[in-house]
Amino acid sequence: MPRQITAFSNPLIKRVRLLRDKRHRKDEGLFLAEGLRILTEAREAGRLPQYLFFAGDSGNHPLVQALVEATEAAGGEAVETNADILSKLSGKDNPGAVVGVYPEFGVALSDLDRSSASIWLVAERLRDPGNLGTILRTGDAVGAGGLILLDEHVDPFSVEAVRASMGALFTVPVAQASWDAFRIWLRAGPGQLVGLSLDTEHDYRAPAYAAPTFLLTGNEAQGMPDFMAAECDLLVKIPMLGKADSLNAAVATAVMAYQVLGQHGG
Amino acid sequence: MPRQITAFSNPLIKRVRLLRDKRHRKDEGLFLAEGLRILTEAREAGRLPQYLFFAGDSGNHPLVQALVEATEAAGGEAVETNADILSKLSGKDNPGAVVGVYPEFGVALSDLDRSSASIWLVAERLRDPGNLGTILRTGDAVGAGGLILLDEHVDPFSVEAVRASMGALFTVPVAQASWDAFRIWLRAGPGQLVGLSLDTEHDYRAPAYAAPTFLLTGNEAQGMPDFMAAECDLLVKIPMLGKADSLNAAVATAVMAYQVLGQHGG
Repeated sequence: MPRQITAFSNPLIKRVRLLRDKRHRKDEGLFLAEGLRILTEAREAGRLPQYLFFAGDSGNHPLVQALVEATEAAGGEAVETNADILSKLSGKDNPGAVVGVYPEFGVALSDLDRSSASIWLVAERLRDPGNLGTILRTGDAVGAGGLILLDEHVDPFSVEAVRASMGALFTVPVAQASWDAFRIWLRAGPGQLVGLSLDTEHDYRAPAYAAPTFLLTGNEAQGMPDFMAAECDLLVKIPMLGKADSLNAAVATAVMAYQVLGQHGG
Repeated sequence: MPRQITAFSNPLIKRVRLLRDKRHRKDEGLFLAEGLRILTEAREAGRLPQYLFFAGDSGNHPLVQALVEATEAAGGEAVETNADILSKLSGKDNPGAVVGVYPEFGVALSDLDRSSASIWLVAERLRDPGNLGTILRTGDAVGAGGLILLDEHVDPFSVEAVRASMGALFTVPVAQASWDAFRIWLRAGPGQLVGLSLDTEHDYRAPAYAAPTFLLTGNEAQGMPDFMAAECDLLVKIPMLGKADSLNAAVATAVMAYQVLGQHGG
């Protein structure tokens, strides 16, 4: 039987609200996700929250019931609350019916099985949480083996990244590594490193891509540094006919990933 | 000689800050853009601000100087200010060196020349300003004739949309119309209406697209209504291998647009 909390001053509510801040997420090893679609996606991927907050008037919804039951069965706590508290927790005027607090997770490079997928996404110094979430959605759609985040990057467990991923954070493995660690791991097995660049004449539609293909996208503002470009087995360019000088990083990653997927017969 | 303003209480500063709000934008017919890259893009596209705010310590930057001169030559006013005020105007902790206040613009359907481009982007009930800006960047990159926004949609002149467009708002014509007005205009001339859909078996790589191709993207959460799908000459689907059920709308638009661009020989 879920307990009820309707007071902003409740210590658990205060604690959960602080998870909007990166430092508190790292201290607690917990993060926030919101909305029935994302939490259901998580449940189907086998991820259950430590705390599940749901609006009292949504308790009869079958997907909310399924979340409450699964959370309690896994040892987590379901908490009945109201729209005001959910709004406070999610930071949105129109909160969804549920907010979940999950343990952070992740995978080490050494635990990735590169033979499990023909496309892998790699992003270096990714800064925008919306781009990170969007790239995860693309990774899910193209069946990527995972997303590898290099060097200093935005937190994949930020509220904005989780929201933009629409649940793909729970379905696409995310590894975080330094460039050096990645390079050593990459070269210890098969894999073609393909960099997206503005400084090349190779059209992205021309090459034959070898699986597993590792697609490297550079920092939004600066692109990738020269030493990374030099390490790539192939640099390719998406043609741009316009006046502005680049596509959005998440968009470029997707256009490229679908090109590779098409070649690999997906 | 630019005047200086360094007081938050200055009436112009107060007035400009209010442009972050849609109602005030519509009342004034003005909107905000920020950052040297975007304002320079605008200048090169022939759009100059009514008011240009620049940080005093950036006044020697050649691009800032070019903006100040062009703004004054066009009858606008350049105002020297400081980082605190720029931060207040832009709503960012780290503001760029410049903020501009521009008259809103737009183009009527009847003024679009459909023979001027082989790809046109059409979005119905687009809700997210980041998606709108990102679609404009894609439109710029693929050489789209313009973006046509149907029915009730997010304001293309919102601070977030302008920022996400990275200047493409100034280079890609944007028309706003009802579905009915669009349908009548479309059918009064040549044009293939291609809808992105999850409810079709046609892979987006299979068809031959006829120029001018009008790519219709549906609302982020609901997709397009049945009556729009029924009007499309072709419905196509981007394959999705994953567990989540859809790509981001701006990403799907871009994958599709590059497929068409490739066929048209771009």
